[in-house]
Amino acid sequence: MSSLPFDNCIWDSAETITAEERQKLQLELLKKVVERVYNTVPFYKNSFDKHKVKPEDIKSLDDLRKLPFTVKEDLRQNYPLGMVAVPKDELARIHGSSGTTGKPTLVAYTHKDLETWANLCARFLVAGGLRREHFVQISFGYGLFTGGFGLHYGVEKVGATIIPAASGNTARQILLIQDLKPDVLICTPSYALNIAEHAKQTGIDPKNLSLKYGHFGGEMWTEDMRKEIEEQLGIMAFNNYGLSEVIGPGVSGECYLQKGMHIQEDHFIVECLNPSTLEPVKEGEYGELVFTSLTKEAFPIIRYRTRDLAYLDTSPCPCGRTTKRMSRVKGRSDDMLIIRGVNVFPSQIEEAILQVPGISPHYLIEVSRPGILDEISVKVELQPGYISDKMSEMQSLRDRVLRKINEITGIHVNIELLPPNTLERSTGKACRVVDHRKIS
Amino acid sequence: MSSLPFDNCIWDSAETITAEERQKLQLELLKKVVERVYNTVPFYKNSFDKHKVKPEDIKSLDDLRKLPFTVKEDLRQNYPLGMVAVPKDELARIHGSSGTTGKPTLVAYTHKDLETWANLCARFLVAGGLRREHFVQISFGYGLFTGGFGLHYGVEKVGATIIPAASGNTARQILLIQDLKPDVLICTPSYALNIAEHAKQTGIDPKNLSLKYGHFGGEMWTEDMRKEIEEQLGIMAFNNYGLSEVIGPGVSGECYLQKGMHIQEDHFIVECLNPSTLEPVKEGEYGELVFTSLTKEAFPIIRYRTRDLAYLDTSPCPCGRTTKRMSRVKGRSDDMLIIRGVNVFPSQIEEAILQVPGISPHYLIEVSRPGILDEISVKVELQPGYISDKMSEMQSLRDRVLRKINEITGIHVNIELLPPNTLERSTGKACRVVDHRKIS
Repeated sequence: MSSLPFDNCIWDSAETITAEERQKLQLELLKKVVERVYNTVPFYKNSFDKHKVKPEDIKSLDDLRKLPFTVKEDLRQNYPLGMVAVPKDELARIHGSSGTTGKPTLVAYTHKDLETWANLCARFLVAGGLRREHFVQISFGYGLFTGGFGLHYGVEKVGATIIPAASGNTARQILLIQDLKPDVLICTPSYALNIAEHAKQTGIDPKNLSLKYGHFGGEMWTEDMRKEIEEQLGIMAFNNYGLSEVIGPGVSGECYLQKGMHIQEDHFIVECLNPSTLEPVKEGEYGELVFTSLTKEAFPIIRYRTRDLAYLDTSPCPCGRTTKRMSRVKGRSDDMLIIRGVNVFPSQIEEAILQVPGISPHYLIEVSRPGILDEISVKVELQPGYISDKMSEMQSLRDRVLRKINEITGIHVNIELLPPNTLERSTGKACRVVDHRKIS
Repeated sequence: MSSLPFDNCIWDSAETITAEERQKLQLELLKKVVERVYNTVPFYKNSFDKHKVKPEDIKSLDDLRKLPFTVKEDLRQNYPLGMVAVPKDELARIHGSSGTTGKPTLVAYTHKDLETWANLCARFLVAGGLRREHFVQISFGYGLFTGGFGLHYGVEKVGATIIPAASGNTARQILLIQDLKPDVLICTPSYALNIAEHAKQTGIDPKNLSLKYGHFGGEMWTEDMRKEIEEQLGIMAFNNYGLSEVIGPGVSGECYLQKGMHIQEDHFIVECLNPSTLEPVKEGEYGELVFTSLTKEAFPIIRYRTRDLAYLDTSPCPCGRTTKRMSRVKGRSDDMLIIRGVNVFPSQIEEAILQVPGISPHYLIEVSRPGILDEISVKVELQPGYISDKMSEMQSLRDRVLRKINEITGIHVNIELLPPNTLERSTGKACRVVDHRKIS
């Protein structure tokens, strides 16, 4: 790990301008984009008119708050391309969010948008050590999903060598790592663990593979999960954040100090709001992230409610970047489990179980309401070597998990200890929660 | 179809230079590449030395024949990157051929190679009607396979809009076609048929979809299959050719006249040889195609034996391109089935069954040797509406297929008529032959 080159890891001079310069730039761009969407996208004209706000009302950055929010449902209602702000023949690419049910949510890019996107990804890749001489294995799925193509074009922009392994076929992923000796792995954090585990099962110590670091995103993960991945693969693991509605990966990403993700504020204005009152929270407090794009041509987005809960940090970062940082996402305001009136995030349960020695990072949370009360049961896998025939030892391990979850979440759950390799593994986004209350 | 714009469909002035100019360019490039591989790739140095040929022996294009062949096994023996001619840190991308058994065959590209590749794909896409205002659905798998990325960068180079649907999930493919109204479909020919069939099954007439034309490759197909696709989808269907060892798709492709695929002779020299004697065949006669790359930096290839059987045509094409054309590939010298001493290609069987009304383009050839003699049985699907309860009608349909196959191949086969939708459909390369002789 000592060989990771962290000097000169600034990709773009815009990452280090002063707060005043940045605010000046933001205001200028904000005025332009608000005027543009008002004149080109019927949805925004209607929405602004309904809220009695005109583009010319935006005189300061604070005036942003006069503008109405955009929510996922607005995108659905304007499916497929009703919110696009340029003529169709100027489009270069269509992407979409997975859309678990029915039609995907589609977003669009001009050629300039793709260029912007590649540069935003290059920024965080370089901040986390990428250099043109590196080999990068991309094990994200390619397709409508923005993860694969976003990172692919970012790596290409930096000039490194891409092994486009795509997702799936874990045995082949490991074969490629062994034979091509990539420095970097790019995928979801759960798939990184999956690769490590599969390697071990076939007698390969994943620590001895060539990988030096990885960039992981596309799903929520905890600090403990990071430690687990770093330890198992012998790498540094970096977090990045994005969503297709805003641009895809590249909205923010970590520098080598791993202390929050630098937000690309020359392209996006971020707000952090109390999801109930929609008032800004204090710095350092968790709130819902709301993004406004400043530079996107095809698909500008105004005050998009991400539902992602994180906190902001404006303290100076020793890496030299002057941008605000965001914490890792703790959960989604709509993924929050309300269990007998207590708010619980899946990430809290992950945090708890990873603190108990002997428990693996593979788990499944099942929520049900067998009678009139909610119940949570958490299936956790033991690590190899922790299975015991003694009931008392298993009981005491179960108790330790119970206590830790109770300590962190305040709720009581049922724990089911499973042998290693029992739960289904994912090659992309992991499924961590099954809520039987919603199904029935 | 009349709206397809075929004027100004020349992408690159190099496509229309005279034969003399082209030969001069080829000789110049050939000398350079031969010298370069001799000095940078140990495999070529050894191989040339063994055949007692030096780079300076190449004084005319005819001298190419002094050079030894390169075969797939050479790539395997130099796995993973032993045949790469540039330092590792100049590589931009690794791709590979599928490698049905064990390790894939890997090939590599510099940034300039990727640029070349994109332009080669742009050439045949534009020759077949692509314009920057078109929407293109790419339903090839992305990843190590060159089909997806090759076409993707080609379409991007032209400036059209890409819908990167990737392969699989046929219901969603059709949803995207209905909602985004692409002009162009890019995939394997068998998957195009699969999409048409799936549409019909869900009550959609594929002729009424927005598609105007398609570029199909990645597997062998016949002229009858083209007619079938054109009819079912109401489009023009264009053929393109390539293989990862040479560069990927873009080695050759059809113009709108659909009379053979123009070979990109400023980047590749083609030979057409008798696979037994390795002497050139006469123009218009089938032989094995052998390619030498002239411009590739990372992975130059000298006299690569493709095993693909086709014929060449130097007659002038009315489209204005002055390049040689190649016929569609009839088969591979190693895919040829030798049945009781008779050479049979799967494509001949496809050609036969598609000429019998009532038979669908879905078929499977099974070869076995139950006693001492080879037997072929061909499973063919009936088209809806052709199933009859009358034994005599079914028998007469079976006879028609038998006779047609015998007429074209000279062999006698067993025919099994199946109801519609019985055979497995493919989302990528179709599996047409199961040879039980090899398995046992």
